[in-house]
Amino acid sequence: MEARIDRALPDRKPLPKPDLRRMLIPIGPVAVFAASNFPLAFSVAGGDTASALAAGCPVVVKAHPAHPATSELAARAIIAAGKAVGMPPGIFSLIQSTRHDLATALVQHRHTRAVGFTGSLRAGRALFDAAARRPDPIPVYAEMGSVNPVFLLPGALAERAETIAEGLAASVTLGVGQFCTNPGVVVGVSSDGFERFVRRMQDLIRNARPGTMLYPALLQSYEAGVRRLSAVDGTSEVRSTIGDTGQDGGARPALFEASAQRFMQHRELSEEVFGPSTVVVRCGSGDEMAAVARCLEGQLTATIHGTPADLATHAWLVSILQDKAGRLVVNGFPTGVEVCASMQHGGPYPATTDSRTTSVGTAAITRFARPVAYQNFPQSALPVELQDANPRAIWRQVDGEMTKAALAKEL
Amino acid sequence: MEARIDRALPDRKPLPKPDLRRMLIPIGPVAVFAASNFPLAFSVAGGDTASALAAGCPVVVKAHPAHPATSELAARAIIAAGKAVGMPPGIFSLIQSTRHDLATALVQHRHTRAVGFTGSLRAGRALFDAAARRPDPIPVYAEMGSVNPVFLLPGALAERAETIAEGLAASVTLGVGQFCTNPGVVVGVSSDGFERFVRRMQDLIRNARPGTMLYPALLQSYEAGVRRLSAVDGTSEVRSTIGDTGQDGGARPALFEASAQRFMQHRELSEEVFGPSTVVVRCGSGDEMAAVARCLEGQLTATIHGTPADLATHAWLVSILQDKAGRLVVNGFPTGVEVCASMQHGGPYPATTDSRTTSVGTAAITRFARPVAYQNFPQSALPVELQDANPRAIWRQVDGEMTKAALAKEL
Repeated sequence: MEARIDRALPDRKPLPKPDLRRMLIPIGPVAVFAASNFPLAFSVAGGDTASALAAGCPVVVKAHPAHPATSELAARAIIAAGKAVGMPPGIFSLIQSTRHDLATALVQHRHTRAVGFTGSLRAGRALFDAAARRPDPIPVYAEMGSVNPVFLLPGALAERAETIAEGLAASVTLGVGQFCTNPGVVVGVSSDGFERFVRRMQDLIRNARPGTMLYPALLQSYEAGVRRLSAVDGTSEVRSTIGDTGQDGGARPALFEASAQRFMQHRELSEEVFGPSTVVVRCGSGDEMAAVARCLEGQLTATIHGTPADLATHAWLVSILQDKAGRLVVNGFPTGVEVCASMQHGGPYPATTDSRTTSVGTAAITRFARPVAYQNFPQSALPVELQDANPRAIWRQVDGEMTKAALAKEL
Repeated sequence: MEARIDRALPDRKPLPKPDLRRMLIPIGPVAVFAASNFPLAFSVAGGDTASALAAGCPVVVKAHPAHPATSELAARAIIAAGKAVGMPPGIFSLIQSTRHDLATALVQHRHTRAVGFTGSLRAGRALFDAAARRPDPIPVYAEMGSVNPVFLLPGALAERAETIAEGLAASVTLGVGQFCTNPGVVVGVSSDGFERFVRRMQDLIRNARPGTMLYPALLQSYEAGVRRLSAVDGTSEVRSTIGDTGQDGGARPALFEASAQRFMQHRELSEEVFGPSTVVVRCGSGDEMAAVARCLEGQLTATIHGTPADLATHAWLVSILQDKAGRLVVNGFPTGVEVCASMQHGGPYPATTDSRTTSVGTAAITRFARPVAYQNFPQSALPVELQDANPRAIWRQVDGEMTKAALAKEL
């Protein structure tokens, strides 16, 4: 609720201070565009639906055409659950359609008050533009592309180059690379440790089993992306050589390597390829690594592998990366997004259209809420959350101090 | 900081939980467009500048051409203060210009990360559209028009029609009506009390002294607005008849009256006229009052005058109005905006372009900040606000509970 109360000071000079109380209320009906890559966690009954309903907003979900039957099963479960708890009918609805004009109509409907979306940059930007063109613009929370760069610092490479390679290869190929947090760019400075890392990665990718992607269009798009990276002059490439591939086969993991100069000259190398592929960027110096970090676009995550000594001498890297990403990871991998109060899943454009919010974790509820202040309201007309007695026993900021206590009666 | 900490659970099944900590960081350079009507509180050293600097963001202010000398005095004071406290040069700058392309250039500059604006709907929307057209869209916090409707309930009118009229006339003419919270629409149901209210308002406006507006263009725009209201068929009009008027004179207060039907048919009657003017809307019934409330656009404020019994029987009105406005006032007047934690100065479009934030009060700082999560960071690499010891002694949400305590060392 983010409840705040400032009590009246009727004797204040030169003017009395009124009683003011502020809390969040639901923003109104929310349109949710389901993701293709997470048929459960980011689809019909996914994070956006959960946080919009939790905020008190009606939800209209546009199912992703890649999984219509799963979508319908999830929708029927939500509707049955709603009936069981007495939720009014119509608070939740599902639309299935492949009509292109439907998305715009949903975003521009006069009752729609916010939009949640997970998918491609092109589609997300189209929804953002449609919302911005409304007579009354509304917020669009679109989660789009991210290459989730991983920076390897010298001390960590010297200590455990092979272990990092093993963790990274597992992260790149997890779920056939169909995670929004898939690490698509890996940056390090040339050294013995870096060579050991690259050799181990090459072995791992060469021997990584191809996997079946969620639907055929994803595989086609992955293969086109890999061809785009292959076509860049001066990159070297390693691909998985085992298992079935081809029309009925799987997506073959791929590893590219490019110099920092090449990476900064060719934008394709820093564009997301959705699938089990990553680009290793070889820098000649720490300064070149800083230049690579600075030229990155907005990201969901950025990761650093470093010893305590590395982190102390690379504070500048944390500083650059926190301007670029919503979540910074030390000595881990970006795949795996914990659902908790402290999660920030979002980041500067083009990772999302609104870096001020998260799509995962309890803070996501604030996407679908707006504050209202109540001035000089009698107790009986106030929402219960703002009444003196605090019957819900929630945390409130009262006259500048956080408290769960009821307000003492005036003498 | 909105600091949140979720500690690691290394033994959690099926997967360990990482250590995650989240807080707000500055969003980056902010462009502030100063208001014409508040040469101090909403101009160079106004609310947007204060909250952006407080959030840690550099600020570039575009001065309003109506008060260049005041703007320069304020800018020099800020720069001198910055020097005194060791603020790096360039954190604050002021631009004076009447070039039309400058506003767009400032909003579309690649380093600009957010925009604050107070002014007209036309200018605010133009800045919003310019920001939405960027390759990387940025948030625009534009505060634009509002008629701040006032609803008069039957019990309150029966008890104190004349007193309400006196308070309202003072609010309408305060500062020659140049407040964004000026009450431009007053709605009541026909009754003896309502007649007494209207008669007293007519007397007060007829005898209200004309006042000098801040600059000549405001007076011209006010007179044009009053002519637009006069031109609507079926409205009656009372204007101040005392004092100097005309070219070198002041703005003459004006009172219009229209039926609810007329009000709902003629959009001009619900559009802001910037100056000491208000429109009284006469309803035939409570249902008609509800229809008037429902047809209103987004507002900064909405006010209700009512007895406790009125408020109990008109809970539906509070419910309608909280969907329309950012601040609801009972038995007061909307002019006078308290600067405190519980203030919400903002509201649904067209009152502002972002109803999720406020331009007044301590909550305004969140406009210019975005959250970042730090995963598995060693203590020494964390921002001090998120370190176990909590050296700044700030409130933090730790494992779901609010506390100022330091985190206990692990055993």
